[in-house]
Amino acid sequence: MRDVAVIGVGATKFGQLWDNGLQDLATSAINLSLNDARISRDSVQSLYVGSMSGGLFSSQEHLGSLFADWAGLKNVPATRVEGACASGGLALRQAYIDVASGMHDVVVVVGAEKMTDISGAAVTRALSTAASYENEAVFGATFPGLYAMIARMHMEKFGTTEEQMALVAVKNHQNALSNPYAQFHRQITMEDVLRSTKLADPIKLLDASPISDGAAALILVSKDYAQKNSVEPVWIAGSGCATDTISLHDRDDMLTLKATVLAAKQAYQQAGVGPGDVQIAEVHDCFTIAELLAIEDLGFVEKGKSGPFVQAGNTDITGKIPINVSGGLKAKGHPIGATGVMQAVEIVSILSGRTKGKCINAEIGLTHNIGGSGGTAVVHIFKK
Amino acid sequence: MRDVAVIGVGATKFGQLWDNGLQDLATSAINLSLNDARISRDSVQSLYVGSMSGGLFSSQEHLGSLFADWAGLKNVPATRVEGACASGGLALRQAYIDVASGMHDVVVVVGAEKMTDISGAAVTRALSTAASYENEAVFGATFPGLYAMIARMHMEKFGTTEEQMALVAVKNHQNALSNPYAQFHRQITMEDVLRSTKLADPIKLLDASPISDGAAALILVSKDYAQKNSVEPVWIAGSGCATDTISLHDRDDMLTLKATVLAAKQAYQQAGVGPGDVQIAEVHDCFTIAELLAIEDLGFVEKGKSGPFVQAGNTDITGKIPINVSGGLKAKGHPIGATGVMQAVEIVSILSGRTKGKCINAEIGLTHNIGGSGGTAVVHIFKK
Repeated sequence: MRDVAVIGVGATKFGQLWDNGLQDLATSAINLSLNDARISRDSVQSLYVGSMSGGLFSSQEHLGSLFADWAGLKNVPATRVEGACASGGLALRQAYIDVASGMHDVVVVVGAEKMTDISGAAVTRALSTAASYENEAVFGATFPGLYAMIARMHMEKFGTTEEQMALVAVKNHQNALSNPYAQFHRQITMEDVLRSTKLADPIKLLDASPISDGAAALILVSKDYAQKNSVEPVWIAGSGCATDTISLHDRDDMLTLKATVLAAKQAYQQAGVGPGDVQIAEVHDCFTIAELLAIEDLGFVEKGKSGPFVQAGNTDITGKIPINVSGGLKAKGHPIGATGVMQAVEIVSILSGRTKGKCINAEIGLTHNIGGSGGTAVVHIFKK
Repeated sequence: MRDVAVIGVGATKFGQLWDNGLQDLATSAINLSLNDARISRDSVQSLYVGSMSGGLFSSQEHLGSLFADWAGLKNVPATRVEGACASGGLALRQAYIDVASGMHDVVVVVGAEKMTDISGAAVTRALSTAASYENEAVFGATFPGLYAMIARMHMEKFGTTEEQMALVAVKNHQNALSNPYAQFHRQITMEDVLRSTKLADPIKLLDASPISDGAAALILVSKDYAQKNSVEPVWIAGSGCATDTISLHDRDDMLTLKATVLAAKQAYQQAGVGPGDVQIAEVHDCFTIAELLAIEDLGFVEKGKSGPFVQAGNTDITGKIPINVSGGLKAKGHPIGATGVMQAVEIVSILSGRTKGKCINAEIGLTHNIGGSGGTAVVHIFKK
């Protein structure tokens, strides 16, 4: 397999973007990434799209052809990839495999979702298609409910507190203040979180990521291309992916996302690093409890110890392993298909020094993207 | 890139399958393909799923995790791929790239769609998401309407007749008689087609492929694996993919599917063959006019000459280049995501001699899968 580099990143702001349709968002992100990489659209050889449900959110499937058309990537092969909330991470992975295979030298990945054009009830229904329809959704299970069961069990078994979960939200809102792409620029306190409306006890409104519109894009190239064009690349050092039972109740252990553990193992092995080498990570905090699970399952802290670990400031921007300095899904926003790509945009920006405002020097970063309640996990490791 | 072989095929019957849900269909096809390849499910390293709209047809996205779970492919990376009606062909292509890259040695591809659980109106709406929502679907354009415009123009420009189109349906229904997987086992006459209900003049009911349930699967392996395990493989000699404007009205020439031309060119080039070398082909006959376009755009006959070519029997099972000996989408059925995979199941079965009933000796076969009105095209060439 050939080495693969990221040489361009681009994204729209995340939020309720009334002025932009799905294809406008995707096109904007693609254009920004092409400009960032300083390459023309004619040099693009293939397109990958990460999107969860164009059908249910936007009455629009066939997003590969649509986005290639709108972005002027004339006649390139285009493939839309879906794995619920891990769609963006999976699209990045397919683009990585494409370049690594030798099939193409210059590939664009775009993740996009436009969620705010339909009613809240329709959004909840659309999101529920990430769970098993026959065994979960049809009985009324929603993702706040599923993650609430995980959170309750984590509290029972490990003594994790609602305050510790709330601190994840407080930190991520704090981090989002300096991220111009973030949906929320609002500092919140632990009390704000604890007093917010209960969605599914113990998960409250401010423990949950929002409904968002947005898009993010990356330009991936082969080593040869990067060297010939003297660009300063960030390397994709490892790509891991695994699945687990789609339904929570089928798992031996509800408190370990096995898909995360296995995907991380593959990525670490390929990159030749361990969790201790990772200097910065964007993890999938669809709910605050999900960030706690992630930092355990990725190996940053022992299983069950994430609550005190976060409380001690280890995951703050100045801590041992800064987590979600972008604001995470919680505060940056979570336009489903865009999320996994945006995580990579953030890590690549930091490793390459594109984010001048942030005083972080890191050479190894990680992204972690989850589908459903852990049915799919995708982990990538990036090196300067 | 490494050589890639197909060593197993499997499929469900196509039709209105009331007793089976989406995941039952996919699991059946996967199991049959594993049995055919004589490998255990533990040896599978990765899964690709082709499906157009689990969300709109089955209230179910996240099909990679779901199918891996149901088929007992424990924890494998699983990726769902979508490109409207070309979803199956795209999934095959991603699996091909995966094995060719060196990432995995044993990969399963499954295409599946369950279309008959929702109302006819809901199916029409779901299918319309393969066109541009903003520029076609929202104005009431449906695929019979879009292909009718192509057919009318083909008639005007090249003198193609409704009788010639009808002959495609007659041939494909005849071919389906010997295909146990086919939705229809009913001989039809040219008069039946010409007298059938008009959908969008000149396209009539019997010019159109049906609404179907079904699934098909393939086992792809690396050359090393095939040789070590002494299996008799069929090789994927070429894989091509291209896009075009998603909307028909944006094209310079409505009578040439440029995506087909470009995808075929890539596949021919990679395989080192030309259209004249292809001995058998499964092409995308969502409507009879689509088969005529395909045999022109794939280079089997000059542009505009497909009507007389078909009329002279050249595409019959005993003709110069047998087309859709399976019955095609028209008579075998068209469960969207399954179609592109089922085409490969048919060609691999013929090249390898699995279809003992059919007196066809061929060493080079081609599959051609289209999304929308030609927004995406995928072409594969197989060699014995």
